[in-house]
Amino acid sequence: MIKILLNGCGGKMGHAVTNAACGKDDISIVGGIDKFSTEHFSYPLFKTIDEVNVPCDVILDFSRPDSLDSILNYADKIKVPIVLCTTGYSDKQLEKIKAFSKEHAIFRSANMSIGINALNIILKKLSQILYDNYDIEIIEKHHNQKVDSPSGTAILLADTIKNSINDDNISFINGRNGISPKKHNEIGIHAVRGGSIVGEHEILFAGQGETIELKHTAISREVFAVGAIKACIFMADKTSGLYDMGNVLEV
Amino acid sequence: MIKILLNGCGGKMGHAVTNAACGKDDISIVGGIDKFSTEHFSYPLFKTIDEVNVPCDVILDFSRPDSLDSILNYADKIKVPIVLCTTGYSDKQLEKIKAFSKEHAIFRSANMSIGINALNIILKKLSQILYDNYDIEIIEKHHNQKVDSPSGTAILLADTIKNSINDDNISFINGRNGISPKKHNEIGIHAVRGGSIVGEHEILFAGQGETIELKHTAISREVFAVGAIKACIFMADKTSGLYDMGNVLEV
Amino acid sequence: MIKILLNGCGGKMGHAVTNAACGKDDISIVGGIDKFSTEHFSYPLFKTIDEVNVPCDVILDFSRPDSLDSILNYADKIKVPIVLCTTGYSDKQLEKIKAFSKEHAIFRSANMSIGINALNIILKKLSQILYDNYDIEIIEKHHNQKVDSPSGTAILLADTIKNSINDDNISFINGRNGISPKKHNEIGIHAVRGGSIVGEHEILFAGQGETIELKHTAISREVFAVGAIKACIFMADKTSGLYDMGNVLEV
Amino acid sequence: MIKILLNGCGGKMGHAVTNAACGKDDISIVGGIDKFSTEHFSYPLFKTIDEVNVPCDVILDFSRPDSLDSILNYADKIKVPIVLCTTGYSDKQLEKIKAFSKEHAIFRSANMSIGINALNIILKKLSQILYDNYDIEIIEKHHNQKVDSPSGTAILLADTIKNSINDDNISFINGRNGISPKKHNEIGIHAVRGGSIVGEHEILFAGQGETIELKHTAISREVFAVGAIKACIFMADKTSGLYDMGNVLEV
Repeated sequence: MIKILLNGCGGKMGHAVTNAACGKDDISIVGGIDKFSTEHFSYPLFKTIDEVNVPCDVILDFSRPDSLDSILNYADKIKVPIVLCTTGYSDKQLEKIKAFSKEHAIFRSANMSIGINALNIILKKLSQILYDNYDIEIIEKHHNQKVDSPSGTAILLADTIKNSINDDNISFINGRNGISPKKHNEIGIHAVRGGSIVGEHEILFAGQGETIELKHTAISREVFAVGAIKACIFMADKTSGLYDMGNVLEV
Repeated sequence: MIKILLNGCGGKMGHAVTNAACGKDDISIVGGIDKFSTEHFSYPLFKTIDEVNVPCDVILDFSRPDSLDSILNYADKIKVPIVLCTTGYSDKQLEKIKAFSKEHAIFRSANMSIGINALNIILKKLSQILYDNYDIEIIEKHHNQKVDSPSGTAILLADTIKNSINDDNISFINGRNGISPKKHNEIGIHAVRGGSIVGEHEILFAGQGETIELKHTAISREVFAVGAIKACIFMADKTSGLYDMGNVLEV
Repeated sequence: MIKILLNGCGGKMGHAVTNAACGKDDISIVGGIDKFSTEHFSYPLFKTIDEVNVPCDVILDFSRPDSLDSILNYADKIKVPIVLCTTGYSDKQLEKIKAFSKEHAIFRSANMSIGINALNIILKKLSQILYDNYDIEIIEKHHNQKVDSPSGTAILLADTIKNSINDDNISFINGRNGISPKKHNEIGIHAVRGGSIVGEHEILFAGQGETIELKHTAISREVFAVGAIKACIFMADKTSGLYDMGNVLEV
Repeated sequence: MIKILLNGCGGKMGHAVTNAACGKDDISIVGGIDKFSTEHFSYPLFKTIDEVNVPCDVILDFSRPDSLDSILNYADKIKVPIVLCTTGYSDKQLEKIKAFSKEHAIFRSANMSIGINALNIILKKLSQILYDNYDIEIIEKHHNQKVDSPSGTAILLADTIKNSINDDNISFINGRNGISPKKHNEIGIHAVRGGSIVGEHEILFAGQGETIELKHTAISREVFAVGAIKACIFMADKTSGLYDMGNVLEV
């Protein structure tokens, strides 16, 4: 049974992880950290990570970028792996994570869904096979309250394509209005917004006489919680190195 | 048997109509007009409409906007209805068509597909029912050689939505890049380009907890030819008025 | 402010309605009925409808068919409209509902989603326009625990098509395996099952050279709760007659 | 410039290959064989393969299974590779092809589309990663004249899934009607038929809280011609062995 310390237990994803962990017999949340929460959890709640007085096997973080330092310090003190599911780190913070991974086990992924990460693996392969003869476009759909566009996951997928092919002139555009045919190395990323759509990502490969579409649909937040728990189990016995969801799935 | 005079028989759509008409027993192409064609057709070929010496019941036009005057003159002389399938008319030409329809039967449509026009009819209804509580977006996909974006048909569909609802502040945008939630009265029109896609149009209604998608896919140019022939049959007995595909389908 | 009495408040849909009603200023749940629930609600809880001692404007039912008699009796006593969202009534019960509607206002619908009912309205229209020249098929997708196939909503949509067209020989089939082309009047209904899919229904119209797809996707149960509340508001001032979601949307 | 001898040049696929080859500078059709054709081609036409009097680098076959012997004999005589795109061979003929490949280069594929074969490669990978936690279903759509169901390509894809995973109890079903939840090892294959749909194949992976769809759409027969030419170029320098489209794409 792997003992998880959950940083950010009072947020939306914190609750989703708590629900997903409930009743599992290979993992257990032994403590939660949240500065503002006054809720009742099935585990002890701490205001800050430094107040934690329960032993754990892995630290799972769904909070905010600015809590990075406190997590690294605590993990260094108690010598356990970290699973970072927070997004929006600065370049400097990413550097710090990388340096930390020399001596500690640390995991970071822009999207915790197993489906998106599996998609990302085959996208790499498909881009290599098809890019020369196929045009590529990405269409993502999210709810009308999403503040950023295109989505971080769409950018992740676009970068995967870019890194899989040999074309220095590849460019991304975020819409078309006017007159001119599509250039082959111009990948359109289209951000569709409406209602309460949880999240859809479609990658279109369009060739002569045929198309291939890869499409991922998130039905609920549960999916990110399930992926995070899977990452915790994967990381529990690691002692150093930087990992992501690709490593978890490739096993 | 309705006798059709086909203006622009040497173009892509001219050939599609010629093929679609072949073997039909309710219509027959009795003559074709094309300035540059040197091909062999199953019907007599004329350089200009004024040289035509065969009787017809309706003039079908798949040529260019600048041939409008010669068609109107000829139709006025022989007193037969006109079916205009050419796009790109100027406002002045559209005025001329309207004025002509006071005394003559004339048909004009931005998209000859029966499917698109049927979609347009139900889109009107659906927009009225759903607009207050649903966000609307349009996604269209075409081949990588298409010069204009968004497609004329996407604009046609967007205008149908606009004309069906009571919201003076409705606006269209052609892509998203940056930070801000979607406004309800902002309809995104996304132009996806790639390979040899003939033409897809999807209208998304996204509400709380559910979405509705209306999607049209053109498989081949045949579909526009079939619609044009249907319009010819519909128009054959008309003597005045301005008609479009909506009239043909509503019967 | 319309006061709703919620029968079956302890079930999945009861909770969804309670959440959807929370904070609304045009409606309010004034009491709930559930034989087995011991939960705490924001409104008084009663074991049976006969124990209710709060005034209400409409009775909303998300329980089981066998509670029908007690609801009809209570509604007859206090003279308020009923909104029945329960499915699985026997023919005899349906007769009773119909008879009751002569003197009382009563609402019943097989699917409470506004989207499905809006789809149903345009499906009627589209079937009339296209059936002669288009083949029709239905594809529905649901989670792997769903016990019945095809879904009740797929059957509802298929019946709408059947009732919209003039073809006595129409038939439904639930899969294809073997050798023979499709007959025009044979509508395939395909039940796809997997994972935790909430519910998708797609109607395909396939003609020469083009297809039209109508697709509804349910994202969460919330959608049925929102529809139920809309039905309550619609019914509040009715005094007799049998209504369904079609009436609510046509207004 | 690779010189292709085209067996079956007078059929639908023969014409598609002839068009696709036109104007290419790395390949050229140097002769065609068709017993019944009286058409004019850009290359010499022969009644039987034994009458051919032009040198070639590869034999491309789009004819019927019963011409296999004559092709093998001729290839043995002139020592050139064969690309077989004909389907419907008997088990005995498949044995003969295999035996022949010991000393000669021969290519055979159930579907010549590059897209379907690329899809097949990633499907193998995705099935391995996801099968334990995801349900799988296949939906294919074809025109209303297609005689067999499900399609040969759907069966090809289903077999790929079966061969990629460790589950002896996997089974395929071709529709659902009645009452019972889906079993995990039961893969539904749904054959949708209508209008003039060229060919669509969708594989659905449905897990907890998310789905992944892989979808291939054939727009025209051109796609099979393009794949066949690619196979000819790949095979031109081979001297022995049995190859398929997977080999062409893996390079």
